[in-house]
Amino acid sequence: MDAAEFRRRGKEMVDLIADYLENIEQRPVYPDVEPGYLRSLIPEEAPEEPDTYEDVVKDIERVIMPGVTHWHSPYFYAYFPTANSFPAMLADMLSGAIGCIGFSWGTASEATLVALLAARSRAVRMILASDPQRPETGITSKLVAYSSDQAHCSVERAGMIAGVRMKKIPTEQSDKYAVQGETLRRMIQEDKAAGLIPFYFCATLGTTPSCAFDHITELGPICNAEKIWMHIDAAYAGSSFICPEFRPLLNGIEFADSFNFNPHKWLLVNFDCSTMWVRKRSDLIGAFKMDPLYLKHDHQESGRYFYTDNSLFRSLKMWFVFRMYGLKGLQDYIRKHVELAKEFESLVRADQRFEISADVVLGLVCFRLKGSNEVNETLLKRINNGRKIHLVPCQLSGQFVLRFAVCARTTESRHIREAWRLITQLAEEVMQELPH
Amino acid sequence: MDAAEFRRRGKEMVDLIADYLENIEQRPVYPDVEPGYLRSLIPEEAPEEPDTYEDVVKDIERVIMPGVTHWHSPYFYAYFPTANSFPAMLADMLSGAIGCIGFSWGTASEATLVALLAARSRAVRMILASDPQRPETGITSKLVAYSSDQAHCSVERAGMIAGVRMKKIPTEQSDKYAVQGETLRRMIQEDKAAGLIPFYFCATLGTTPSCAFDHITELGPICNAEKIWMHIDAAYAGSSFICPEFRPLLNGIEFADSFNFNPHKWLLVNFDCSTMWVRKRSDLIGAFKMDPLYLKHDHQESGRYFYTDNSLFRSLKMWFVFRMYGLKGLQDYIRKHVELAKEFESLVRADQRFEISADVVLGLVCFRLKGSNEVNETLLKRINNGRKIHLVPCQLSGQFVLRFAVCARTTESRHIREAWRLITQLAEEVMQELPH
Repeated sequence: MDAAEFRRRGKEMVDLIADYLENIEQRPVYPDVEPGYLRSLIPEEAPEEPDTYEDVVKDIERVIMPGVTHWHSPYFYAYFPTANSFPAMLADMLSGAIGCIGFSWGTASEATLVALLAARSRAVRMILASDPQRPETGITSKLVAYSSDQAHCSVERAGMIAGVRMKKIPTEQSDKYAVQGETLRRMIQEDKAAGLIPFYFCATLGTTPSCAFDHITELGPICNAEKIWMHIDAAYAGSSFICPEFRPLLNGIEFADSFNFNPHKWLLVNFDCSTMWVRKRSDLIGAFKMDPLYLKHDHQESGRYFYTDNSLFRSLKMWFVFRMYGLKGLQDYIRKHVELAKEFESLVRADQRFEISADVVLGLVCFRLKGSNEVNETLLKRINNGRKIHLVPCQLSGQFVLRFAVCARTTESRHIREAWRLITQLAEEVMQELPH
Repeated sequence: MDAAEFRRRGKEMVDLIADYLENIEQRPVYPDVEPGYLRSLIPEEAPEEPDTYEDVVKDIERVIMPGVTHWHSPYFYAYFPTANSFPAMLADMLSGAIGCIGFSWGTASEATLVALLAARSRAVRMILASDPQRPETGITSKLVAYSSDQAHCSVERAGMIAGVRMKKIPTEQSDKYAVQGETLRRMIQEDKAAGLIPFYFCATLGTTPSCAFDHITELGPICNAEKIWMHIDAAYAGSSFICPEFRPLLNGIEFADSFNFNPHKWLLVNFDCSTMWVRKRSDLIGAFKMDPLYLKHDHQESGRYFYTDNSLFRSLKMWFVFRMYGLKGLQDYIRKHVELAKEFESLVRADQRFEISADVVLGLVCFRLKGSNEVNETLLKRINNGRKIHLVPCQLSGQFVLRFAVCARTTESRHIREAWRLITQLAEEVMQELPH
């Protein structure tokens, strides 16, 4: 769907929404369906080829509306109000289009935390089962969690929130910044010898600094043997696994207790959209169970409110995207970004003044001017001050590195070449001014 | 703005969005403004009378766009991608209109948790300042937090997440289900005598079961004297404080360390929109500080990413609503809902078979058939099975009570009367069938 079609479809959608709200009181306010009713109405898998938009729209009444509790019906008197107004909807359309994201608190960060809390609760439960007299606070104070020193900062914050030790596992350039099995095994042994209780490991597939992949085929069996919860944060890289050629990056997933990726990063679904899979549902539910009377209802299965209740509406956008692009369209999109990154990598490699700082696996290129950190910091500042292109840095083995991530849906080869032209032009200036 | 105008404005907005995205690469990708640039461009206060929609739209380019980092520009290569596609935007328009909410994990729940974590970090810091040798885990295991037995279940969950004791303070019907100063004082003394460290109290203004208001004028000074963090959860009732006649319900706010309410509940701003105020910003920042290189930039003031970064875009809807309704329009809206609740209360009071179970202060009426819990449970089941109106129950002093909350923007007196007609008709049936 291009902008021209969006103009047409968007206007139809505005009318559909106005019709819905003008006639909402004619609808039964509360759905007459059983949990799981959706399963028989939709296919098991996303379509290979795109569906037509007409089919998707037809399914709004056939598939979606039968499951809706109409919170904006004047006959809805439950809970407390949830707001809805025309100006707010207009503004939401605009902020969806601008689509900036919230940095430090959202989505994958929550998944990391939720997994950590479930792991903490499971660990405490297991220890109490064998030693019922032990005070719970005494257990918590001995727990220790692990993640790579390349992991996202939200992993460390999850440890702070849960009030447990979080140790960073060192990585090396020679190991491509991936956590090695041997390093984790050694840390576990040392911590156990010191009386601590290892209980959680957050592996990353596609780290933020350099898109490194922890060796989960090695790490998984260690975690399983030690009864350590292995959570996998694949926030960015997860989308690429829809392409068979990138699927091997996911090998070892069979050892994971939980897995998360963000379709809002690289799968064409607007912010926010983060999916989490948990091996054993009861581990999650047990950690958060709450049953006040105002949340009880006939179909209640303990805990299903926690994640599932608003998934139908919030996942509409995923459903539209899967159907309108089809698996093939989504794969093409991922592949194109990876190709653009490879094109940028070639440009960097062809220029003797620059070096590549980490393997280019997906859509991220880490590169720098051969020379001091200062010269690279100055280069980045010039690039961003120009306001034509925008990059952020990372640190790898003490070096200040520039990250070039292919981000926009509309990025083409000409943008990559133009970006490189600007970067080399500014590099020229910087190198003339500064020793390097 | 009515549905007819929304049809027109919505279509204009679709074109505005398509124009924006088609021409995005012409814009500087990164903003050239200083933090705080907005302050001089917008008035200090929301307008009394509504602005015109034309003025609001003009301000998109004047006020908003200069501060935008254009994540969807093909010249954006920072961080990782954030997705954006036309089908997802269409779906988002629809889910915004359907506007169901996520129950147990959002918004006010996060504010409660964030305040609790900041309080925990402050408490640990204070104790370590006077006793630097004390191990931190030894402190955490002694901390104790409090909330009303009427508080939302998310308060209890916040305690579970943070790994601290959370005690429920008992309330009484005779005190209108509000926490009394004397009760809190006694619990604090007992806990201190037992070697525990009281550090956090979550007061509720407008509880979920009955819209009760904790006595913060009494509770606040106790908390301040004991260095206990007082957080106020006014998720629902907070919106009403824009009316002078409801402002006294907020008396005692001067003792609070943090305060939260959800404009997405009762202030016409679509889900999700939750606002949190903190007395001392550094308490919050100190508890969550993270500084990875990829989040650093020139204007960085430690921690500002945590809450502020995406507020500009996510708050667009609040801005549209304040301007299009004006303070008067919003006050009228709140008052109308309260009047409708009073109208329903009168209908209940005029019927000898029913009783009112809690004071009607705002838009919630708690009522029941005089008689057994069973007869009321049956009545509620009949009401909801009819699918014409939807209510949820609560428990007050062991009694099963029906909650009638005025929720929808479009609810009118005729809907209230129709709802009452249905309720009494079903009550008639139930009372004929069951002993009561």
